[in-house]
Amino acid sequence: MNLKSVGEFGFIKRISQGCLIRPQHILKGIGDDAAAFASEPGQITLLTTDLLVERIHFLRNATSGYNLGYKSLAVNLSDIAAMGGTAREAFVSIAIPEECETDYLEDLYKGMKHLAAEFDVNILGGDTTGSKADLIINIALTGIAPREEILYRHTARAGDRICSTGFLGDSRAGLHLILNDIATESDEFGQLSDAHLLPRPCLREGRFLARQDGVHAAIDVSDGLSSDLGHIAKQSRVGVRLYAEKIPVSKNLKAFCASFNSDPLEYAIAGGEDYTLLCTISPDKADAVSENYLREFGRPLYLIGEVTVSERMELIWPDGQIKPITSSGWDHFVETGLGNRVF
Amino acid sequence: MNLKSVGEFGFIKRISQGCLIRPQHILKGIGDDAAAFASEPGQITLLTTDLLVERIHFLRNATSGYNLGYKSLAVNLSDIAAMGGTAREAFVSIAIPEECETDYLEDLYKGMKHLAAEFDVNILGGDTTGSKADLIINIALTGIAPREEILYRHTARAGDRICSTGFLGDSRAGLHLILNDIATESDEFGQLSDAHLLPRPCLREGRFLARQDGVHAAIDVSDGLSSDLGHIAKQSRVGVRLYAEKIPVSKNLKAFCASFNSDPLEYAIAGGEDYTLLCTISPDKADAVSENYLREFGRPLYLIGEVTVSERMELIWPDGQIKPITSSGWDHFVETGLGNRVF
Repeated sequence: MNLKSVGEFGFIKRISQGCLIRPQHILKGIGDDAAAFASEPGQITLLTTDLLVERIHFLRNATSGYNLGYKSLAVNLSDIAAMGGTAREAFVSIAIPEECETDYLEDLYKGMKHLAAEFDVNILGGDTTGSKADLIINIALTGIAPREEILYRHTARAGDRICSTGFLGDSRAGLHLILNDIATESDEFGQLSDAHLLPRPCLREGRFLARQDGVHAAIDVSDGLSSDLGHIAKQSRVGVRLYAEKIPVSKNLKAFCASFNSDPLEYAIAGGEDYTLLCTISPDKADAVSENYLREFGRPLYLIGEVTVSERMELIWPDGQIKPITSSGWDHFVETGLGNRVF
Repeated sequence: MNLKSVGEFGFIKRISQGCLIRPQHILKGIGDDAAAFASEPGQITLLTTDLLVERIHFLRNATSGYNLGYKSLAVNLSDIAAMGGTAREAFVSIAIPEECETDYLEDLYKGMKHLAAEFDVNILGGDTTGSKADLIINIALTGIAPREEILYRHTARAGDRICSTGFLGDSRAGLHLILNDIATESDEFGQLSDAHLLPRPCLREGRFLARQDGVHAAIDVSDGLSSDLGHIAKQSRVGVRLYAEKIPVSKNLKAFCASFNSDPLEYAIAGGEDYTLLCTISPDKADAVSENYLREFGRPLYLIGEVTVSERMELIWPDGQIKPITSSGWDHFVETGLGNRVF
């Protein structure tokens, strides 16, 4: 069955089920000219939006509807996490090619709704239309945070320790497996593939870090460690020094790199789409934050480097050698030829 | 020059100029993982989003960048107007085909920024990416309104008078002129073409109506009079009776219909994209609201019909004849074959 037989309003009716999971403070969700909801006293509103385009960000035949819906929302949730916020209301715009099956679309909304429910997010509205070529999804997502706890990119200070909430590079390795149609039946390869397809937005981690004393700046790893730290460096007018042996690399990525004769560090630094958080912490508070983090999550907060005054980005090898690094991330136009993320 | 030579971040830097025109209460605009702004005490947040897809909603070679940018924002502003709100923060996602010239895009942002500045709207963020085929624009727009003054679709009551803030059908006639490449040098045809390309969002009118005693429901005319009143009727579980001779038709549309041997009423009822507001008003308050409206704007609020208990939609001719009307609007999938708006 395709959309022509269901119609726009029929489709909206079908997908509206299960969208409102936190009805408090919602005056109007799907079905009017705009959604209406009460803003929360004493809280700042956060808003992020991500546009996903077929053949740029994903290949429809290489991803299930469920995974596409899940990840479309996950990338937005990750942006709210990187601000230290709590996610609230999602608005889903979708442009649907005529031949796209409703089964695929219902699966897509299923993936989105599962993740939304897990993080207490309402799907409050959006827009549905046709498309002549590609499937297009735009999600706008609001969040909230207390004014004093918001984590920005421009507030890192020289001397801050740089930390990551998780492993880096797994997602890029998973992408390699998916694009080259390499079997992911082994646990190791399966987990790499999942890291790419079903990344966990670090909302709890972001909120936790935002409440800790001494955490100054944060960003999520979407374009890649070097590119995303580059944003913090540029906006904070500081430099970055990373320690090669401290960058957290999973045993899965090591196994992958052993199989494919490649360098885990390259995947970790330039990979992208890990959706872990990077943060900078005042040097006198870094130990306390790390201990609190370990106690809260049962996982370490990985210390990977320091913020410097130099405005350069550099990587220190265990032998003391210094290698300059660049923001060689995922500029959609120049470096990768209009983008090449695929999930 | 195209985007490949400027790059995503270079492009964002260029278009960021002039986006923040109302800096009060804005903690962070373009440049972080999410925008951050203070919510306004005692106000409800409104949020609407519209996705515009090349070859579905517009033809790139038939519209200037300026007009495309202007209208992309106008349709969202109109949704906030229809809720009785004040527009606040806009978030622009854009997917850009490789061959698209930066001149066209800068013109697009110029059109958007002119309209944004006029209605005191900040452009606070968005997303920029590539596209393999079509130019895609999604705007998410927030607004605010006092809780007791929001105008919904589901709150019309039997007996209410139905009013329109302006002429109906002009936009559809303008579209006909544009699509058929008919010269619009005459004042009349030029104004019809402008009604389609550069619609005025009725934000002041919506806010005014929302403050008036007795105004129960509202919607903007995007899909067409019958289709949009159909939404009010369905959601309010009422019917609609329109008086054919009271439906406001401009002298321009009459001249157009005389030239092309067509019926102005058909354009007015099924046309769409007029972006006037329709509202329903308690019968004992309708005269007072109309008088206040005329005094405020120097233009009449057109009374066009009544809300009925029947759950039917009907059109009454001057001779008393009754013709049933249907919501034959712009369902993007079923009725028009994946949409056929073009501007």
